Amino acid sequence: MISVILIGAGNVAQHLYKVFSTSNKIKVNQWYNRHLQKLQMFKNDVEIIDDIVLLKEADVYVITISDDAVSELSKQLPFSNELVVHTSGSVNLHHLEKKNRRGVFYPLQTFSKDAELNFNDVPICIEVEHKTDYHILKDIAIAIGSPYYRVNSLQRGALHLAAVFVNNFTNQLYRVAHEITESESVDFNILKPLIKETAKKLDTLSPYLAQTGPAKRNDKKTIKKHLASLDNEMHKDIYKLLTKAIKDTHGTSTSSAFKKPNSK
Amino acid sequence: MISVILIGAGNVAQHLYKVFSTSNKIKVNQWYNRHLQKLQMFKNDVEIIDDIVLLKEADVYVITISDDAVSELSKQLPFSNELVVHTSGSVNLHHLEKKNRRGVFYPLQTFSKDAELNFNDVPICIEVEHKTDYHILKDIAIAIGSPYYRVNSLQRGALHLAAVFVNNFTNQLYRVAHEITESESVDFNILKPLIKETAKKLDTLSPYLAQTGPAKRNDKKTIKKHLASLDNEMHKDIYKLLTKAIKDTHGTSTSSAFKKPNSK
Repeated sequence: MISVILIGAGNVAQHLYKVFSTSNKIKVNQWYNRHLQKLQMFKNDVEIIDDIVLLKEADVYVITISDDAVSELSKQLPFSNELVVHTSGSVNLHHLEKKNRRGVFYPLQTFSKDAELNFNDVPICIEVEHKTDYHILKDIAIAIGSPYYRVNSLQRGALHLAAVFVNNFTNQLYRVAHEITESESVDFNILKPLIKETAKKLDTLSPYLAQTGPAKRNDKKTIKKHLASLDNEMHKDIYKLLTKAIKDTHGTSTSSAFKKPNSK
Repeated sequence: MISVILIGAGNVAQHLYKVFSTSNKIKVNQWYNRHLQKLQMFKNDVEIIDDIVLLKEADVYVITISDDAVSELSKQLPFSNELVVHTSGSVNLHHLEKKNRRGVFYPLQTFSKDAELNFNDVPICIEVEHKTDYHILKDIAIAIGSPYYRVNSLQRGALHLAAVFVNNFTNQLYRVAHEITESESVDFNILKPLIKETAKKLDTLSPYLAQTGPAKRNDKKTIKKHLASLDNEMHKDIYKLLTKAIKDTHGTSTSSAFKKPNSK
């Protein structure tokens, strides 16, 4: 049995609490938050506290609070030489106070407040200061059914950045599509199967090989028509830039005489 | 029983042939292609021809050839007053020769050569010149289990354009993410659950409400850090433009004093 204490009460903390509670390999000893109000609904299931000096013993302390607050909170911890991890994609391991054994337990997924999430679909990126701490974090990932990966700081940074592209920026493209369909009073739902298939295609093809469309085949006529039909300047700019990016990637830019070498 | 004749031998034609063949409400009478070679493997199951004057009677003629060739081919059809449809998202209905009853049967999906595709996930966008032809195209959609939508030309154009954003451009963002992860030798597969969840989130939230991330919350520190860690100029440009687009959409641009009204 691995004992865990949670610190923080946001989305990620609540999802972690829920999945930890369902595992018979993990025991949540305590749950700390600055404001007790947010934890009230769990008070019958776990000890909740808002005074940091009351923190008990545990195998792992999991800090899931806003990035900017991690460093300061880690300094206030009333113990040393314990395993303390944060769950952020972008906070440096060394922002945790060095009096404790430091680590990162970064669930690379988008967490919605209400949506149920299967932790089989939540890859855990693990980073540790001390080699020997890897196994306990790995065992937690296994206990909740998550795939896990050991990464270093640079790799975690790359994943966090890449996640912005595939999550935040992709979602903004969905938003643009929503605006385009709404402008002609056509149902955005028609696009949802395509949206899902586009994601699913990566099961069998790399993004490089999965690419199709007017930019890929340098279909100037369609590109021109599309640009003419866009009246939102921001949509036009996005269309132009991503068309150029696809052409550059696939060597269909008219400016380049040779196909660029690319990893497939 | 609806009789259909297919014209063309590409991806879409082959997927349509396959699904038409499995329906007991549809009979493929003939399959025409300019080059018979591409149809040889189907010759035991359907009459294949490469001479357009040999085209027989059918309820619907489905032209699935490259956009640029649709108009010319429709002129060569050796009959008139029949229902002739193309399957393109971007070709004008009026590019079909007017001697026949014209229509569009546009499957809005990404078709891979080998991947199996469930037609439940292929919305059919139907456009007709003559009202009375709508029902036969609708019945074909029903026979293959596809959701169907009646659209006009402008709506089909909007869907085709929006599809470029959610399919081609989104896939290019996946490609950028692949390049970013590869640059740190980290496994791109780690991102796949997030990619799928991002698409799936639209089942319950609009893209507007689903938006998260540094641009949405105007987290300048993280944005600055991300830009500093990108050394590919194209990646930087995409990051900047889509960050600006998200800020504009969610009223977090520092330049705008007021929240923009937005459809949710």
